[in-house]
Amino acid sequence: MRNRTININIERLMDTIEQSAKIGEIPGSGLRRLALSEEDRQMRDLFKAWMIEAGLKVRVDDFGNMYGRREGKTNQPPVMIGSHLDTQPAGGRFDGVLGVLAALEVIRTLNDNNMETERPVEIVNFTNEEGARFAPSMMGSGGLTGAFDKADIYKKTDRDGKRFEEELERIGFKGAEENRIQEIHSFLELHIEQGPFLENEHISIGVVSGIFGNAWLQVTVKGEADHAGATPMNMRKDSLSAASEMILAIEKKAIDHGAVATVGSISVTPDSINSIPGEVIFTIDLRHLEDDMKERALQEMTSKMSRIALNRNVDVEINEIEKVEGNKFHPQIVRVIGESARELGYSFKNMPSGAGHDARFINDMAPAGMIFVPSVNGKSHVESELTLEEDIERGTNVLFEAVRRLANMDRALD
Amino acid sequence: MRNRTININIERLMDTIEQSAKIGEIPGSGLRRLALSEEDRQMRDLFKAWMIEAGLKVRVDDFGNMYGRREGKTNQPPVMIGSHLDTQPAGGRFDGVLGVLAALEVIRTLNDNNMETERPVEIVNFTNEEGARFAPSMMGSGGLTGAFDKADIYKKTDRDGKRFEEELERIGFKGAEENRIQEIHSFLELHIEQGPFLENEHISIGVVSGIFGNAWLQVTVKGEADHAGATPMNMRKDSLSAASEMILAIEKKAIDHGAVATVGSISVTPDSINSIPGEVIFTIDLRHLEDDMKERALQEMTSKMSRIALNRNVDVEINEIEKVEGNKFHPQIVRVIGESARELGYSFKNMPSGAGHDARFINDMAPAGMIFVPSVNGKSHVESELTLEEDIERGTNVLFEAVRRLANMDRALD
Repeated sequence: MRNRTININIERLMDTIEQSAKIGEIPGSGLRRLALSEEDRQMRDLFKAWMIEAGLKVRVDDFGNMYGRREGKTNQPPVMIGSHLDTQPAGGRFDGVLGVLAALEVIRTLNDNNMETERPVEIVNFTNEEGARFAPSMMGSGGLTGAFDKADIYKKTDRDGKRFEEELERIGFKGAEENRIQEIHSFLELHIEQGPFLENEHISIGVVSGIFGNAWLQVTVKGEADHAGATPMNMRKDSLSAASEMILAIEKKAIDHGAVATVGSISVTPDSINSIPGEVIFTIDLRHLEDDMKERALQEMTSKMSRIALNRNVDVEINEIEKVEGNKFHPQIVRVIGESARELGYSFKNMPSGAGHDARFINDMAPAGMIFVPSVNGKSHVESELTLEEDIERGTNVLFEAVRRLANMDRALD
Repeated sequence: MRNRTININIERLMDTIEQSAKIGEIPGSGLRRLALSEEDRQMRDLFKAWMIEAGLKVRVDDFGNMYGRREGKTNQPPVMIGSHLDTQPAGGRFDGVLGVLAALEVIRTLNDNNMETERPVEIVNFTNEEGARFAPSMMGSGGLTGAFDKADIYKKTDRDGKRFEEELERIGFKGAEENRIQEIHSFLELHIEQGPFLENEHISIGVVSGIFGNAWLQVTVKGEADHAGATPMNMRKDSLSAASEMILAIEKKAIDHGAVATVGSISVTPDSINSIPGEVIFTIDLRHLEDDMKERALQEMTSKMSRIALNRNVDVEINEIEKVEGNKFHPQIVRVIGESARELGYSFKNMPSGAGHDARFINDMAPAGMIFVPSVNGKSHVESELTLEEDIERGTNVLFEAVRRLANMDRALD
């Protein structure tokens, strides 16, 4: 490591992660800390205490997003860093959590070194990124940036019928609208990759170029339900055979176009061992960084599915459930992260994110970017989710260095 | 039609079918007459009245099977004819019903012509052939022939927890064990084809050579549930893609071996639009008249599924749920039916049955055979199930002629 750069305190950060991992701990070193649950409240209380201890000015907005502000020499718009502290029902200790606690570590390291920055630095914990208890996901960041309507969000209920607003109030984190961050110079989110690329290529740092757009579709294949014994193979209108051919075609088209596509859900009617399936419904999740490539893949999939249906004498109906455009991060943020990694002597590569993140919404409001660190076996949303200590250290050092650069920048990014 | 043969009264038979079709009538000219339901009781009462009216001696056995006996000149073992009066939840008016009411029409025609036969003729309505309310199917015939244990059958419950024995008693059709038919010279069942062969080939009469054996299997494919966005296509262990490839291979192997195979049921875990399916469970229903061909098809399917699993880096586990051997009907019965059709000048062909029937069990007890008549569009187990009047007439004429021949045969079939 070069002399000019400052190292974060990895022992302290690992200890902080360890303390967080006790709140909502489940077997297999996993975490269950659903948004606005008792565990979420405990974690928020602890995080608040840590922020105060670090000298930050804490505030909470009306979506429950928590901010901790470290003043700069000037009152220019701050650099914001952070992620989320909630988890999947059976998730790991790093997804989201790392980004918030690394942000705290950045503040602590600034404090250790008595470093003043030109701009203020604010760290943030966004409410309900996972969407596991209250759908949709990324409520806090989406609410803040106006992607979601507050009245809608407040009305959302969990499976037990508990309302978002009441639960937010109950855990004591319904703050004021005026506490929302107003202007942001730049936003950085450190996050685990949740995929296998970095590990496979032995690269420490992923400089995230953008977030995949996605199309969610529902496909209905209508054939004819017939007797499994009495109907010869060449006279069937088997909707599941047709769907199987479609699923393989979807896979192939995704590969051809550098997209990812997943058929995650499927059901058949009448769903009986001795009836030919009369109807199949399945979903498609298609993602690509480039919207036009995604559209092209989608068109080819659609036309291929129609051909399969025609050949097999069944009907197919394809309906769009949701479509989100791809989102590219600000080129200057991407550059600053890459330069920081280079400065620190770490291997890095630019890569898109297939998963959604809070940074996706913040990018609509201010220049944003993300730093990925490797996930062991590419796993996340499982208890065994793991990122090695050395990678956590490197990622947090890059975050620190990038914050140092951005927070001392005297101009807005254009 | 030649002079020597006698025609059944088609107007009377169609009228009888029409009266039956009112008991449990549902829209679309369908029937819902579940075994031991109120509708079944009504139909049984009516059928009993018709049998008495036709001069038959009626008795009911301990499985609720109803017999009506017309004495012969001798007391040799009788020729038995019949099928079942219960239906699918949303079935048609012919499946099973035709075989019982055509048997009644045979008796009425014998009476019209004051014809005496050497052997007695017994007509039968087997209890719960469909298995739609109480599983398994073919309870009456399977119970009679000892394939099922009476105590087991009596304990079976429907979805509301109602026991078979109590329901049998409630509708007044729990008869005596000594009423079971003891010895049978031969058994004939007229039934709709439930498949498209006869219609497609413009043939009036199917002479059923035997009933397909079947193998029921459950296949579990285990891959890995991963994030639909963050996991690249070439690093997935997608259990549904693997299952799709298997389903198409099963279809192909069935065609190659002249078998029929159906994947009728499938489920995925976690079954979420944005998760790669970690596990898929699906069923296979494989049927072939020749058991060795069925076994060969099964072996090839199994080995192909293992290869697909290996290629896709997933695990596959294949478990047998049930295996029933193929059952060939007695060659002399097959010959008598063919000769009767020829005598009447009808087109006919020998063909196997892919579906199971009561005759399958009776064939273990006495020489049995079946007559098929065409199903419009090959449909059954749906309200729109239809067999044309002319085909009903031809089929019942063949049944009559075959009964005439068998009931006047002075020897047992060997």
